[in-house]
Amino acid sequence: MSVNERQTPMHAPMAQFPVSDGELVVGGIPLTRLAGRVGQTPFYAYDRKLLADRVTQLRAAMPASIKLHYAMKANPMPALVCHMAGLVDGIDVASGGELKIALDSGTNPRDISFAGPGKSRKELRQAVAAGILINVESFREVAELADIQQDANGSAGHKARVAARVNPDFELKSSGMKMGGGPKQFGVDAEQVPELLAEIGRAGLTFEGFHLFAGSQNLKAEAIVEAQCKSFDLALRLAQAAPSPVRFLNLGGGFGIPYFPGEAHLDLGPIGANLATLAERANRELPEAELVIELGRYLVGEAGIYVAEVLDRKVSRGQVFLVTNGGLHHHLSASGNFGQVIRKNHPVVVGNKMGCEPHENASVVGALCTPLDLLADRMDLAVAQAGDLIVIYQSGAYGYTASPQAFLGHAACIEILV
Amino acid sequence: MSVNERQTPMHAPMAQFPVSDGELVVGGIPLTRLAGRVGQTPFYAYDRKLLADRVTQLRAAMPASIKLHYAMKANPMPALVCHMAGLVDGIDVASGGELKIALDSGTNPRDISFAGPGKSRKELRQAVAAGILINVESFREVAELADIQQDANGSAGHKARVAARVNPDFELKSSGMKMGGGPKQFGVDAEQVPELLAEIGRAGLTFEGFHLFAGSQNLKAEAIVEAQCKSFDLALRLAQAAPSPVRFLNLGGGFGIPYFPGEAHLDLGPIGANLATLAERANRELPEAELVIELGRYLVGEAGIYVAEVLDRKVSRGQVFLVTNGGLHHHLSASGNFGQVIRKNHPVVVGNKMGCEPHENASVVGALCTPLDLLADRMDLAVAQAGDLIVIYQSGAYGYTASPQAFLGHAACIEILV
Repeated sequence: MSVNERQTPMHAPMAQFPVSDGELVVGGIPLTRLAGRVGQTPFYAYDRKLLADRVTQLRAAMPASIKLHYAMKANPMPALVCHMAGLVDGIDVASGGELKIALDSGTNPRDISFAGPGKSRKELRQAVAAGILINVESFREVAELADIQQDANGSAGHKARVAARVNPDFELKSSGMKMGGGPKQFGVDAEQVPELLAEIGRAGLTFEGFHLFAGSQNLKAEAIVEAQCKSFDLALRLAQAAPSPVRFLNLGGGFGIPYFPGEAHLDLGPIGANLATLAERANRELPEAELVIELGRYLVGEAGIYVAEVLDRKVSRGQVFLVTNGGLHHHLSASGNFGQVIRKNHPVVVGNKMGCEPHENASVVGALCTPLDLLADRMDLAVAQAGDLIVIYQSGAYGYTASPQAFLGHAACIEILV
Repeated sequence: MSVNERQTPMHAPMAQFPVSDGELVVGGIPLTRLAGRVGQTPFYAYDRKLLADRVTQLRAAMPASIKLHYAMKANPMPALVCHMAGLVDGIDVASGGELKIALDSGTNPRDISFAGPGKSRKELRQAVAAGILINVESFREVAELADIQQDANGSAGHKARVAARVNPDFELKSSGMKMGGGPKQFGVDAEQVPELLAEIGRAGLTFEGFHLFAGSQNLKAEAIVEAQCKSFDLALRLAQAAPSPVRFLNLGGGFGIPYFPGEAHLDLGPIGANLATLAERANRELPEAELVIELGRYLVGEAGIYVAEVLDRKVSRGQVFLVTNGGLHHHLSASGNFGQVIRKNHPVVVGNKMGCEPHENASVVGALCTPLDLLADRMDLAVAQAGDLIVIYQSGAYGYTASPQAFLGHAACIEILV
């Protein structure tokens, strides 16, 4: 490798979608035909087979006893949640709105759990009535649930099923987003958990276990292994104070996918090996517990693309701009405005000119009247014209619902599962 | 001022809303009563009188001949656009969706203009049929409009009214967002405009003038003055090549409002004085032209607040977290994820405890299960409990519609004009 090549980090290869006759193939359908079938651009497309393949890969890498949950906040499209429900062992929701979609998917309420630092009384009532597991994040929630349970017992006898969400005394190193360690709004600090557990016991809630979630979007297997080990050890210590045996231990997720130049796919090997060790330990040390890992982005992120059409090709002072009919109102993270400090390009291609020459240096922008609406900044792309289809890879998670869809009053985007 | 005070920049005073009995008063109504009237939290509230006052202040600072347009992308709430329509001389839209709202407001189509780098054929057809002014941003748009005009002439005889949007050969210094100078997707490079004007003439479109927009969110009067002078001079030069006299000259906007500690309100004095000079020059040098300034954020930003309710008060490892039922899904920019490189706090108060003691250092977070959902980071706030109302000032522009409302499936926010 030359010095020059070292200095230009590349995107990880995007090999999940095949190419046929110069077109990306999604769900078995060439891209231009798919666009015709959708009837409009822009759209998001999610590939059923890739979603299933990802679950199969994960299952193969992990011991059979590990339960796999889908954190649907990554992508709450109802048809996709239904598809995932048939593949995974449970669904994790983050609001009353998501709970409705999870229940509609036919998932057994026993296998649905609900986390979030600001659950409203209405949402807690919904959760108790549905019989799902509530990851309790504060003493206030225990008191509210005790109230709700009492009210409900007067009529229908619902019980509140709870796990304690723990803010660990460590954090997930090298994580895109840290959700544990130090002062946090998530869960209850580990050192206050024994008191929380006593409160749960006094309130007569049905205690089922622990939820520990140290961070997300991590590409370093060793950091995930370390967090899972520490989470397991912390749960063991906290179990001493539990009002009943631990039946559920959610070790969180944090598995990342490569978005930016220089990032590589996560190595599942060490994580699977470590989970096998933890599963054995759980067998002896927490014999009634099922071990759960909860993944959102990792399950769905690479199975989705965003497609926008080139409306105009402009050259301004030597720089080529491909002006599309899409934009940050559909795909905020591709514009670099969602959790990024320094904007970097997602992997982007001209999806109907795969492998085609010539290439050029071009920027892809959206239709919005703001300089923030930049989807690709001076990338090497096949020379494109009006009508060509720009594809943003790694768009299956935190895409459409994580974007300001109403911004500037443009037409809505369509999501398809194919 | 002590050295220590100098080192801690403060927010500009937020004096636009009065305080009565310890409560912020919006539209003449104390905050808790307003919340009761809305029937839910969170909500956005916009104050009619403050909107009118701002227009009055601007008119007083500027020569009478300057036309004032509202760029409705800043806040497209239909009732607010109707209110603004009665105060300003025109409305600027950024999409077909916004055009519908502008037309519904009763604004004369002659006084509506449409800018945006990615106008679809459908939107251009709408614009021609409506009889509004189209700020042409590329040679492609000229060709499309010629086609559309020809089609329309076959039936109803609509003419396409156009102005040339110019990408200037300078930029607005000290601007929050630069929209001109260098290579840009907006407008046509100044040096290509003579060719564009010839094309407009050949195509038989109705040429009306120029639109120059150098940047936005600028707090330095001298930078705005400089940009307006340069824009005027550039328009004079370009007018030599125009197919007909200039009747419309939009000098853009760029007037900022203070959001962050250390920022101060814009001084309108020098801007008004300069516009008076330019208006005199226009009288002599472009006698048929009306001079327009186009403002969005500056007209509506300070007249609006976002209100969320404290659901939970948590202390994690010594830090106070006020967990609200709002969040970044309603107010992305307050979370620092919309165009900011380094997150800074917007001005935030406990709106039903104005001037109350004691105060404490607290963070305000939303209900979302993500560490991005931070609305105030370790600010000095009145000690708040569940039920108290957190207010984010400077929320009248780029608030709700610029936020990912569907993220995590929470309930919708309400907007009111009061």
